[in-house]
Amino acid sequence: MDVDIERLRSIVGDENVSDRAFDLYVYSSDASVHQAKPDVVVRPGTTEEVQDIVRYANEKKIPIVPRGAGSGMSGHTVPIDGGIVLDMKRMDRIMDIKPEDVLVRVEAGVVNDDLNKALKPFGVFFPPTPSSGNICTIGGMIGTNASGNRAVKYGATRDSIMGMKVVMANGEALDLGSNTIVESAGYQLHRLIVGSEGTLGIVTEATLRLAPLPKFRMIGVVNFDRLEDAGNAISAIAASGVKPSMLELMDHVAIKAVNTALDMGLPDVEAIVMFECNGMAKDEVDRDMERVQEIFKEHNGSGIEVSDDPKEMARIYAGRKKLFPSLSRYKEGLVSTSLADDMAVPISQIAATIQKIHEIAENNGIIMSAYGHAGSGLIHTKILIDPSQQSQWDASAKAVDEVYKFIREVGGTTSGEHGIALSKAPAWKEEKADQLETMRAIKKALDPNNILNPHKLQDAPDDWVTATDLRYKVRG
Amino acid sequence: MDVDIERLRSIVGDENVSDRAFDLYVYSSDASVHQAKPDVVVRPGTTEEVQDIVRYANEKKIPIVPRGAGSGMSGHTVPIDGGIVLDMKRMDRIMDIKPEDVLVRVEAGVVNDDLNKALKPFGVFFPPTPSSGNICTIGGMIGTNASGNRAVKYGATRDSIMGMKVVMANGEALDLGSNTIVESAGYQLHRLIVGSEGTLGIVTEATLRLAPLPKFRMIGVVNFDRLEDAGNAISAIAASGVKPSMLELMDHVAIKAVNTALDMGLPDVEAIVMFECNGMAKDEVDRDMERVQEIFKEHNGSGIEVSDDPKEMARIYAGRKKLFPSLSRYKEGLVSTSLADDMAVPISQIAATIQKIHEIAENNGIIMSAYGHAGSGLIHTKILIDPSQQSQWDASAKAVDEVYKFIREVGGTTSGEHGIALSKAPAWKEEKADQLETMRAIKKALDPNNILNPHKLQDAPDDWVTATDLRYKVRG
Repeated sequence: MDVDIERLRSIVGDENVSDRAFDLYVYSSDASVHQAKPDVVVRPGTTEEVQDIVRYANEKKIPIVPRGAGSGMSGHTVPIDGGIVLDMKRMDRIMDIKPEDVLVRVEAGVVNDDLNKALKPFGVFFPPTPSSGNICTIGGMIGTNASGNRAVKYGATRDSIMGMKVVMANGEALDLGSNTIVESAGYQLHRLIVGSEGTLGIVTEATLRLAPLPKFRMIGVVNFDRLEDAGNAISAIAASGVKPSMLELMDHVAIKAVNTALDMGLPDVEAIVMFECNGMAKDEVDRDMERVQEIFKEHNGSGIEVSDDPKEMARIYAGRKKLFPSLSRYKEGLVSTSLADDMAVPISQIAATIQKIHEIAENNGIIMSAYGHAGSGLIHTKILIDPSQQSQWDASAKAVDEVYKFIREVGGTTSGEHGIALSKAPAWKEEKADQLETMRAIKKALDPNNILNPHKLQDAPDDWVTATDLRYKVRG
Repeated sequence: MDVDIERLRSIVGDENVSDRAFDLYVYSSDASVHQAKPDVVVRPGTTEEVQDIVRYANEKKIPIVPRGAGSGMSGHTVPIDGGIVLDMKRMDRIMDIKPEDVLVRVEAGVVNDDLNKALKPFGVFFPPTPSSGNICTIGGMIGTNASGNRAVKYGATRDSIMGMKVVMANGEALDLGSNTIVESAGYQLHRLIVGSEGTLGIVTEATLRLAPLPKFRMIGVVNFDRLEDAGNAISAIAASGVKPSMLELMDHVAIKAVNTALDMGLPDVEAIVMFECNGMAKDEVDRDMERVQEIFKEHNGSGIEVSDDPKEMARIYAGRKKLFPSLSRYKEGLVSTSLADDMAVPISQIAATIQKIHEIAENNGIIMSAYGHAGSGLIHTKILIDPSQQSQWDASAKAVDEVYKFIREVGGTTSGEHGIALSKAPAWKEEKADQLETMRAIKKALDPNNILNPHKLQDAPDDWVTATDLRYKVRG
């Protein structure tokens, strides 16, 4: 591609443009299995610079891919058509903390945990809690509508976005939304931008709705001999009016993984559920915890432990916290792959879905673990395979297809918190088959030259690359 | 306009099509001051019928305006280009109550209160609480992103929409959203449809997120000698973590109106605040009420009364409840007009905004009342004028312009809960000036023949008709 490096340098300064092989290599991948080299990496410092870059790219029809931490797991920031990767991390100002309006204005490159550190003295926080909070940026969270283990109480990123500044494909910067709790004012464009994965506009600033920082919290754990009981208990909690701030489930594969990797000594049951309640007063948290425990007991939960002691809480949560790395040590020779990683189902379907996942895995000769933010219907799966065997990749791809088909049948969705991009596009396109043309019409209306993160989502290629030499050696 | 009545009759049956003068007159207005006759009124019974009607209208480029109860206050369902008014009230089925998933699937013509009656035995409810709940339909609530006095705790309609079936301008029916709490799956088109006032598609069904029906509630009232103290108290509550289920403010004009009309004997103060807390347990509600009262006292609130006795609660809330009709009896010869009725501001700006509204009214020789759902930053204003004097209408129009200008300056929005349509389009177009072209691009992409509720929102005419002979006699 013919990219005018000097022109870009004139916009952002020499030190913020690079086409060195090393940089292009680094920016060619994210936390997914995909890989493709950009022509140039540009690091803008202001909205105006982003506008100038986009105007240039639009004029020359050069693809432009905004990127935060690169922690996306589905290929969001992999520039499969080459062009410009726009590293937003220099735009990391926290401009306006307004505790009296319970909101903050930030630039898109601010890291989630840095923001919460800055907000702490004001007694407020930004509620979405992705596991990658120590690196992920607000812009990336908006792009994917990220959430995490506290979505059960606080919702996803979209629920905390009041407004944003967005650079559109023609280089115009729009101020979307307002600083108000309610807004009944026509097309709420910022709600369309959330989750659009950088394909409709480049978010440069955002106004975020905050929540008061809870003063007390307690964590508990409960075991279920039968997965179905765990599912029913979680459904009953959702209907109870009690809002736990966390409600996590681990299946027997996940339990075995942490026991094997870390000698955790967790009980050999079908499901373990970890739960947390938080609030502004101790009596409020006590009462919520009691009510949640009652519901667990009504559904045959056993071995309940609860604590508000920091060390004890860390011990109780350790299994869940260390699950992700543990899964790769489930069995010698198997690695954990994120091929179908974050589906969501209606709350009542959690147990049936996890059971189905195990059934599908067994039928295909692979091992699948299911765990996650059960309180919001979010199920993470990891597939444990010998990555050197092509047959294991093939079996995984077949299992993933079957799992997604089941998810659609029970009214669930392909991605609950990580987004679609490339990895999940084939399944998601089946889920949204009726509306892809409508999405394409919107994309074309807002980005007629198809420069903004092209060929993702509804326009993603169908030949899903599940492995690259970068991540795994496949012998075939 | 050349509308083929027989063709429409063949789709929905003779009895569901009318071009009688009487019907056309009734359907020519809603709860706004606007008026325009349709060519025909059609009452579809199914999504398929809506599709057939829309296909015909699209082919012949006939405007089509979906209508629920016609309770919109800004001209949403006034067919200013003529054509078809689509009365959705026959589509009133409640199809699928799922307490285990805390959701319900309904047709668009279901009336809000009817839905909540049907949900009550399941211990759940649909939280948005518009004042027009006894007549307004779910479809209308989606079109305007309606909310009401409980938005402070539960949010607006948009916060309770999980998915919907929408007939697009080409007649295709799309199933948007999913039955899950989290969804990170690309363009969330249903979030664009909410608030789009029937201009992008016709909602025929919706999946609504419910909330557990609270078992206890308490209501209280507090007086403030200084409006500013009331505003600061409300801001402090927003930051406190306590979520009252209602937080309403009445200014001194509103107080005088109910005292005059109903001899209520409310105290002569700058502001009265009514508050409610609800929950699943009495101790929870008690504690929240105590915390709220503490905050009011810290901000010089006085004369606090609270109760959980139904009769006492009704008495405490009577002033607010009867305010709307009382405003027309503030003074002999004055009527209450809804010219700038539902702006929203950041929580910290409530007192300053109400003070400014009074200042603007005085400068223009009119009387304006400000009251409303202060807990969510929503301010209702009514202008009390002699409707027979053109000069009073002119002064009102000037005052409204000045109020909206101030609202924009403090980061507020033109409409918090009623929508834009015609009445508020001029002010709203100034608020959203930077993004009107983007909205038009989306509208054109989804409705190229401009048949869906044309000339509303970004395409509304600028010559705002504030009065019609239907509502007021203007002598000039």
